[in-house]
Amino acid sequence: MRVTDIQSPKDIKSMNVRQLENLADQIRTFLIESIARTGGHLSSNLGVVELTLAMHYVFNAPKDKLIFDVGHQCYTHKILTGRAQMFPLLRQRNGLSGYQRMHESPYDCWEAGHSSTSLSAALGFATARDLLKQNYEVVALIGDGSLTGGMAMEALNDIGSKQKKLIIIFNDNNMSISRNHAGFEERITALRASKVYRSTKQGMKSNLKNNKMGQNVLKQVTKVKDHIKDGVIDAPLFREFNLDYIGPVDGHNLNELINVLETAKEHDGPIVVHVLTRKGKGYPYAEQDQTGKWHGVSPFDVKTGEPLMKLPYDHLTWSEVISRTLMRFAKKDKKLVVLTPAMAQGSKLLEFSKAYPDRFFDCGIAEQHTVTMAGAMALGGLHPFVSVYSTFLQRAYDQMNHDIGRMKLPVVIGIDRAGLVGQDGDTHQGVFDIAMLRSIPNLILSQPQDAAEAQNLLYTAFRSGKPFCIRYPRGNVKYEEVTDLQDIEIGSWTKTTVGTHPKSIVITYGPDVDHVIAKAKTNNMDLIVVNARFFKPVDGTMIDELYETGLPIHVFETDCRIGSLSTAILEYRNRVAPQFQTFGIDDHFVEQGSVRSLRIQEHIGLEDLFEELEQDV
Amino acid sequence: MRVTDIQSPKDIKSMNVRQLENLADQIRTFLIESIARTGGHLSSNLGVVELTLAMHYVFNAPKDKLIFDVGHQCYTHKILTGRAQMFPLLRQRNGLSGYQRMHESPYDCWEAGHSSTSLSAALGFATARDLLKQNYEVVALIGDGSLTGGMAMEALNDIGSKQKKLIIIFNDNNMSISRNHAGFEERITALRASKVYRSTKQGMKSNLKNNKMGQNVLKQVTKVKDHIKDGVIDAPLFREFNLDYIGPVDGHNLNELINVLETAKEHDGPIVVHVLTRKGKGYPYAEQDQTGKWHGVSPFDVKTGEPLMKLPYDHLTWSEVISRTLMRFAKKDKKLVVLTPAMAQGSKLLEFSKAYPDRFFDCGIAEQHTVTMAGAMALGGLHPFVSVYSTFLQRAYDQMNHDIGRMKLPVVIGIDRAGLVGQDGDTHQGVFDIAMLRSIPNLILSQPQDAAEAQNLLYTAFRSGKPFCIRYPRGNVKYEEVTDLQDIEIGSWTKTTVGTHPKSIVITYGPDVDHVIAKAKTNNMDLIVVNARFFKPVDGTMIDELYETGLPIHVFETDCRIGSLSTAILEYRNRVAPQFQTFGIDDHFVEQGSVRSLRIQEHIGLEDLFEELEQDV
Repeated sequence: MRVTDIQSPKDIKSMNVRQLENLADQIRTFLIESIARTGGHLSSNLGVVELTLAMHYVFNAPKDKLIFDVGHQCYTHKILTGRAQMFPLLRQRNGLSGYQRMHESPYDCWEAGHSSTSLSAALGFATARDLLKQNYEVVALIGDGSLTGGMAMEALNDIGSKQKKLIIIFNDNNMSISRNHAGFEERITALRASKVYRSTKQGMKSNLKNNKMGQNVLKQVTKVKDHIKDGVIDAPLFREFNLDYIGPVDGHNLNELINVLETAKEHDGPIVVHVLTRKGKGYPYAEQDQTGKWHGVSPFDVKTGEPLMKLPYDHLTWSEVISRTLMRFAKKDKKLVVLTPAMAQGSKLLEFSKAYPDRFFDCGIAEQHTVTMAGAMALGGLHPFVSVYSTFLQRAYDQMNHDIGRMKLPVVIGIDRAGLVGQDGDTHQGVFDIAMLRSIPNLILSQPQDAAEAQNLLYTAFRSGKPFCIRYPRGNVKYEEVTDLQDIEIGSWTKTTVGTHPKSIVITYGPDVDHVIAKAKTNNMDLIVVNARFFKPVDGTMIDELYETGLPIHVFETDCRIGSLSTAILEYRNRVAPQFQTFGIDDHFVEQGSVRSLRIQEHIGLEDLFEELEQDV
Repeated sequence: MRVTDIQSPKDIKSMNVRQLENLADQIRTFLIESIARTGGHLSSNLGVVELTLAMHYVFNAPKDKLIFDVGHQCYTHKILTGRAQMFPLLRQRNGLSGYQRMHESPYDCWEAGHSSTSLSAALGFATARDLLKQNYEVVALIGDGSLTGGMAMEALNDIGSKQKKLIIIFNDNNMSISRNHAGFEERITALRASKVYRSTKQGMKSNLKNNKMGQNVLKQVTKVKDHIKDGVIDAPLFREFNLDYIGPVDGHNLNELINVLETAKEHDGPIVVHVLTRKGKGYPYAEQDQTGKWHGVSPFDVKTGEPLMKLPYDHLTWSEVISRTLMRFAKKDKKLVVLTPAMAQGSKLLEFSKAYPDRFFDCGIAEQHTVTMAGAMALGGLHPFVSVYSTFLQRAYDQMNHDIGRMKLPVVIGIDRAGLVGQDGDTHQGVFDIAMLRSIPNLILSQPQDAAEAQNLLYTAFRSGKPFCIRYPRGNVKYEEVTDLQDIEIGSWTKTTVGTHPKSIVITYGPDVDHVIAKAKTNNMDLIVVNARFFKPVDGTMIDELYETGLPIHVFETDCRIGSLSTAILEYRNRVAPQFQTFGIDDHFVEQGSVRSLRIQEHIGLEDLFEELEQDV
């Protein structure tokens, strides 16, 4: 059977293991060739081919719920559910999503894009099933990287408490996106080495013994006491969450996988199946990758592994502009430290991590912890820079609010992949950060027009002693090192007049500033182009000047319209030239007091309102 | 020495254990009497009197960093650092904060208000200390409830990896805010029962043996193998995170506490000190409390334990209005379920939890997990209601965005304690939620004017099949059960004209609607008062009508000005009667595609801009 002929998981139900193994090989070839053309997530998908086959062989989707954490390892799942023919349009507009999407297939029961949500989803489904007295299996596939995310831990804990029947497949590739430096990594390594199946509860063990399939699987069931004696491991992490556990099993051995999943299916309550896989399995370049660069790839040459597209010689990605500037500053400033929540490769920080290993901190997929830790580092006297994708910063809203903004801690936040990111789709577009952060007092929000301004903004940020966010997009930009670094006045915009008799004003930011100027010149149009390099604070003086020209103003942005730059300008103008009067809490945090006393303090008491009302004629 | 005479921790350094015990008794009496007058956090503070004394006895603040997770158990710390005399103004405007505050004292090295940040802070300080080659101890005090928060787990994991010298005091009162139903609770219970000190690493053990103090402490050091044999416990949770561990120790025995902290101080690398305390210790009503109602209290009669203030007979708190309505709906709708992240007592859900134990889910201090789990429950066919304080919802921004808004899941979010909350201060004011949520597509955001509208909004929310947020403030409201429940048109506002010749318009929401109407009547003022019960969507038709009257408009709100209701009105008006043209991503999620194709699709391409510019004369 050809990969593209598969209509549904039914097509594999009657296969024997040999046939499944053969299919796995075909799928792997298909994935490598297809992703080489379109780009996409390679390593993670190559790692779970057999595992996904076994899942669909043992479970009956869509009745049974198969949840893929993050979702970027669901390509084989897509193939087995009849979507192989859509791979030429993978991650393209109106094409196949790189993630599970409910509108795409009934086999996609859940959607994700950020890590660590699958366990909460699994518990939600299992709870609904039991309350509604339905009957289906709930299976969550989660990697070791995702497990370091706090919400996965919250869910593990709750799952251990609620004891609903559900299966957690722990896909352990010892890699996550970049290498996993987790504290429990050492324990997992011990588990990995032990090469025996084991269970932690007597009930589980008898369950396995009474189960025909279980007996095949369990070559060696050791009692807890025994493997303590072995000295190999003491106890698995999962047992501490009151979860039964079986494994580890070879994630590329279909026979073992099928047996262990059948066993898990028979088990009551939550159970963790520990599966060892190799990221990139079957494609040598990806298998040997230690840095995560084969995690998500653009189109490449299968033979050489080289990307098909190259940057112009004088261009860098925006991430590289920032990381190169950090390298430069770190040489002089011994207190400069860099933190990333597992995005060292994506944000081009590997060079920094090698040059300054003691000043580089990969905190795992743990945005909340990363941001707060950076805050304490600043209090401790360091100069921290947090590099984080816009979309992932969403995980740390509260920490940005309480631990950075509220305490006014001098942390520089590099918001990478800001704006539209493209192929990763709606879970990854970095279009919300301005709106999300703008109402948090004390934060400075900025975006450079070009690589030179990026360097100056970063220079300014470290010297400001304030919480300072610099956002920059995916993609590349012409780069030249700025030798004469300059402080930029916080909140100041710049403007460029194209031609002599401007008829319009365009207020924009980021690379669009130059794009608009260039196009105006090409089109021979007279135009004032404003570089609104600060979203907060805005440049009130310039806004007033622009209004005074009487020229039509166009605010051109590529982020969510609600709450972003145009809103900031409207809010500012309504203060200067009110359409209506507003009462509300000004841009600061409000300390304790009775609500009544605070309303008086903030001039939002009824008295304040009625005093104003008296003046209306 | 009188409690109010204490100037600094130096005053206790020369005391013997008997004197410290005596002081502990005095502090307890002082706390009970003081909190009875002012209100505040009682149980948590009574639980850690001896522990805090031991901490200040053994460590040298402010050089050593003492971090209190959440911070609401730092009253004894405040007393020992010379702030006892300020307790009459506890939690009042310009008075003593109920939390650690850096501006209040150099002994407050960190601030918190939400749980689970202390471990990230500790690792940040310890890292800064080591990089800057400084020399001080870092000590984080964290309760069992806070440990269920995801970011604490993220930090534990990273601490285990980085192996910096720091001390985690695990304050185990087996209660958290409401009772802790955590999965690892069972393990902790086992630990608790074991009543032996133990360590997990040979290095630790020899460290203890070589340490004079350590030998006093360690009545019985058992090897891992031994206590497995004992059958009491297998291994502590913390070892799975690669952390050394010592305990459990009686948290009310100063001798033991001092010894164990001295021992921990000698230890290299991170170590967890497990301390058993009793919440409410020394005040019988609080000690016997199983529900958490003595966690935070308003002024009360020390003798009877009764609150000094009572609600009028026909009033309920807003939380009660919601929970009572949920009880009513749950009777008919068997699919209705209620989730809370550990706020069953605060949000008045205990009655619901007793009436419908199988439909009530306390998910622990785990806002992220709670919100996402509710999403999956909706997909699984249930009708979930998530009850969460506004300030704590900040922890789940990303989950509200991705898992509720993006998937359009019909979850009703009850945003409790919205607006100013008063005494808890700046970490708890619920003033950001409108601004935070308004840019997330598909969410409906509302706030009822009164208890009747609250019931109708809740009715509407469950029938809408949409993600629906209803916010309501702290405090109470006149209540009557609405027998004839009615759907409210989503996005519709109402207005009331006071008098015959209105001279002004006031747009407001929540209880202020009635307050403004009442005051206008009292003052004999003619006024149009608008109940803006939806922040999203806003009532465009009514806004236009109001503008057409030509009357001055006052938007009266008590939340953060940036991004809230007045902003929503400005944004709406700029679409109808533009001050300037805006380009941006409309209020929806943007799917995958090349950035170029997406810009065309969203009408934010350069072409779109220049097409408009052509039309400027």
